[in-house]
Amino acid sequence: MKKSLGADTFALPTPVWVVGTYDDQGKPNIMTAAWGGICCSVPPCVAVSLQKIRASYNNIINQKAFTINIPSVDQMTAADYVGIASAKNFDKFATTGFTAVKSDLVNAPYIKEFSLVLECKLVHTIDLGLHTQFIGEIVDAKAEEAVLGDNGLPVLSKINPFTFSPPERKYYAIGQDLGQAFSFGKKLFDK
Amino acid sequence: MKKSLGADTFALPTPVWVVGTYDDQGKPNIMTAAWGGICCSVPPCVAVSLQKIRASYNNIINQKAFTINIPSVDQMTAADYVGIASAKNFDKFATTGFTAVKSDLVNAPYIKEFSLVLECKLVHTIDLGLHTQFIGEIVDAKAEEAVLGDNGLPVLSKINPFTFSPPERKYYAIGQDLGQAFSFGKKLFDK
Repeated sequence: MKKSLGADTFALPTPVWVVGTYDDQGKPNIMTAAWGGICCSVPPCVAVSLQKIRASYNNIINQKAFTINIPSVDQMTAADYVGIASAKNFDKFATTGFTAVKSDLVNAPYIKEFSLVLECKLVHTIDLGLHTQFIGEIVDAKAEEAVLGDNGLPVLSKINPFTFSPPERKYYAIGQDLGQAFSFGKKLFDK
Repeated sequence: MKKSLGADTFALPTPVWVVGTYDDQGKPNIMTAAWGGICCSVPPCVAVSLQKIRASYNNIINQKAFTINIPSVDQMTAADYVGIASAKNFDKFATTGFTAVKSDLVNAPYIKEFSLVLECKLVHTIDLGLHTQFIGEIVDAKAEEAVLGDNGLPVLSKINPFTFSPPERKYYAIGQDLGQAFSFGKKLFDK
């Protein structure tokens, strides 16, 4: 018998991403978001939701572009900071030491120090209530050579991302490699 | 200098969720999805994207409801199976031994054996290409007492969910508790 917990955002796991944008003067901003996820394979699209009061909200509306930057556990304190500090009161780049690099594909900056970034062109804006969901078409993924495997693709353990648990408001590291998806399940086909 | 990897869905981490639906005859179906995320706090909403060819796609369109069921590492083989097997050819409930329980709030079944489930009412359908994104308002979250902490809220380590790495097509466990979000970052306010 399950216990009702009420209507709440208790999905696990959720990502921790840093969203990069430019304002109308070309000044870069970054903020952390956990309400997001991949939402289409072809074309590749990612969704991220922001509150209207965030400076990044207007930046995405105006520039029609954003980046998703995947922080590592080593960057957790800085990523936490850019999620709670407002660009109106703090110079987030000066404080964190992060460097904004202009994307050559969309009008948004990515973070040089992050090992994996996605450059996104805004394709849908859906006002849901407190949050507005921005869907971006991923026009390129870029990564540091150091986090790529022998096949040239990103390796999670080298990127060392972390995850957020909404009911606990806690961050967790990613753990053990459990093996290849779309494989274990095949053994049940003959059952 | 970052290396371009092309336009691809290389976001980390992504969730592994099992989506529960009913067809027009009231027959339950479940399928696994990794393209999803929370997308609004008020009202609480979750997004999940499915391909049009999946039986669950028509079920959500017709019933305007679905559930999100969070599998544990112990349920990984079964969750992998319900992601690759089609309801057209396999009886997923018989094979996995999972039990469909009708939600008392929406016309969708949740999985009795899963410790945390979200009951969702369809509020938006966004056709993105290969995938269609379904946004559901979470009308209730339900959990087994055994996974709740002293404060009555779900504890990630007790649920023991896992995550998917798109570039590697691998599953990973969740690891170490890294502490409270919205706290570490405050130390940078005085910097």
